Amino acid sequence: MADSELLLGIDIGGTNTAFGLVNNDGRILYQASISTTDFATVNELLTHIYYIITKTFQVNIQQITGVGIGAPAANSLTGIMQAPSNIKWQSPIFLQESALQIFKLPCVIDNDANASAIGEMMYGNAKKYADFLTITLGTGVGSGIIINHKLLHGHTGFAGELGHTIVDINGRVCGCGRNGCLETYVATKGILITFDALKQAYPSLWQICSLKSKAEVSTYDIAMAAQSGDKLCMMVFDKTASYLGLALANAVAFSSPQAIILFGGIAQAGSVLLDPLKRYFDQYLLHLYKDTVQITTSGLPAANAAILGAAALAKQANN
Amino acid sequence: MADSELLLGIDIGGTNTAFGLVNNDGRILYQASISTTDFATVNELLTHIYYIITKTFQVNIQQITGVGIGAPAANSLTGIMQAPSNIKWQSPIFLQESALQIFKLPCVIDNDANASAIGEMMYGNAKKYADFLTITLGTGVGSGIIINHKLLHGHTGFAGELGHTIVDINGRVCGCGRNGCLETYVATKGILITFDALKQAYPSLWQICSLKSKAEVSTYDIAMAAQSGDKLCMMVFDKTASYLGLALANAVAFSSPQAIILFGGIAQAGSVLLDPLKRYFDQYLLHLYKDTVQITTSGLPAANAAILGAAALAKQANN
Repeated sequence: MADSELLLGIDIGGTNTAFGLVNNDGRILYQASISTTDFATVNELLTHIYYIITKTFQVNIQQITGVGIGAPAANSLTGIMQAPSNIKWQSPIFLQESALQIFKLPCVIDNDANASAIGEMMYGNAKKYADFLTITLGTGVGSGIIINHKLLHGHTGFAGELGHTIVDINGRVCGCGRNGCLETYVATKGILITFDALKQAYPSLWQICSLKSKAEVSTYDIAMAAQSGDKLCMMVFDKTASYLGLALANAVAFSSPQAIILFGGIAQAGSVLLDPLKRYFDQYLLHLYKDTVQITTSGLPAANAAILGAAALAKQANN
Repeated sequence: MADSELLLGIDIGGTNTAFGLVNNDGRILYQASISTTDFATVNELLTHIYYIITKTFQVNIQQITGVGIGAPAANSLTGIMQAPSNIKWQSPIFLQESALQIFKLPCVIDNDANASAIGEMMYGNAKKYADFLTITLGTGVGSGIIINHKLLHGHTGFAGELGHTIVDINGRVCGCGRNGCLETYVATKGILITFDALKQAYPSLWQICSLKSKAEVSTYDIAMAAQSGDKLCMMVFDKTASYLGLALANAVAFSSPQAIILFGGIAQAGSVLLDPLKRYFDQYLLHLYKDTVQITTSGLPAANAAILGAAALAKQANN
């Protein structure tokens, strides 16, 4: 594409929708965020975005060469958002069709975890990798799998649900109705459950825990305390890392990637998560793969990652 | 390729090496089997095969358009067999280089499980599938993963080691040095361990078990007894199926295939394995994938599958 051309990246979330115009160098030239819940349908949301771009930003729509949209439960094969748990629009949501009608531009949709993976490849730490996977640790666990520079969608378009691989068949009940999914241990709620369980199991560590006086504890609090050397909180991340290390070692036995890239709020805990994670991962990894896989965190600025990921969907389609 | 052209498929096993010439229709026109252990090096083995083809079969080598070789621990990216556990040749074994020197023909090597997967796609039950995986249940557990009509090799060439995904972190010790690998439950030795454990746990069922008088019991005996309604032996396959169902459900959350195809001696147990397997698989499968995956057994005659798989490696390279 020519130098002056732009890609529109839209990240639809349960609370907010962020969007921006990205140039060839991966710089976001214009961006904004609007409340997803202010709009009764995806059509109204996208129409408002069109308005902001053309009227507020005063960008000529013909300068835009493609639209990429990341959204929960979005399926790139069908173009539909299929009953996302945190958006109340009536299902099925014909996201791609709406976007095509409104923008009259090439438009690619995918789920937010896949958008993150492509964003990392186009603009972040994964430019040098042909084969890698990303795992996003937040209120849920998402993952995107890149094989030979391409997103793996599988037969259904729903490939890459590592958060719902079962790590303990007799484990915690998951929102999906099964037991022992990775998500029940390494997403926000799971980490808080581990914290409560370890409080009960190690009362002497809880007595000296720096979070003892807090009325309500967040995973951010636990990460900060662990970073300051709080034993109980370090143990919470050690336990979290053991489950994640197991699931990632199993994932490597599937696709043998060069790298695994961590995204999301919990990944920002840093070394209190990464150090035990690398130790468990190495312990659980089949000898064939020893020292063949890098584990690292995302190279994209957290504030821009979602928009860049969405724009990267369009960029890959254009290439 | 022209009608009269042939592919040479060679399957190197720990005990025997089978090879044959396969025509365009997937028919094996000439075949033979020789003892692998009679040869001190892979060079001597392949030289002998060249001799049989040209002298015994009296086939003109120029009629052959490609050579495919399936072998344990063979890596298609490096061309090397890397320390196969059941072949005593000095490592590393430069399989592809040897074959090129001897046959002076295009030559593709891969591990036997990957050869099976490609064979199934070219000649068997998977012609209609773009995305599927195979799992071979025998003395070990191998697997081959096909994504968009192509074998998944991954960064190292060792992708697809489902036998070494961990299904129980506190489980049985595996030959690989870790605990709870799928292989420790669903390969021959694992099934015999399960049989012994259930004998101990259910003495009343062992009292009425049809295998009680046998000095040594094989997995074939257990399968036959289970097919005749022996309660203890049916329980053995139920337990085996529960671990396999879990590992396969987790594999689906990775790549979302259309089908899973079972190979190997244990897969031939039939409905005593398949019925409980389908039940557990369905129970452990994430709702997104319900009714999207066929589980079936190989469509290739067991006696020919290895040669056809090896020939298919060459055929895919020619296409």
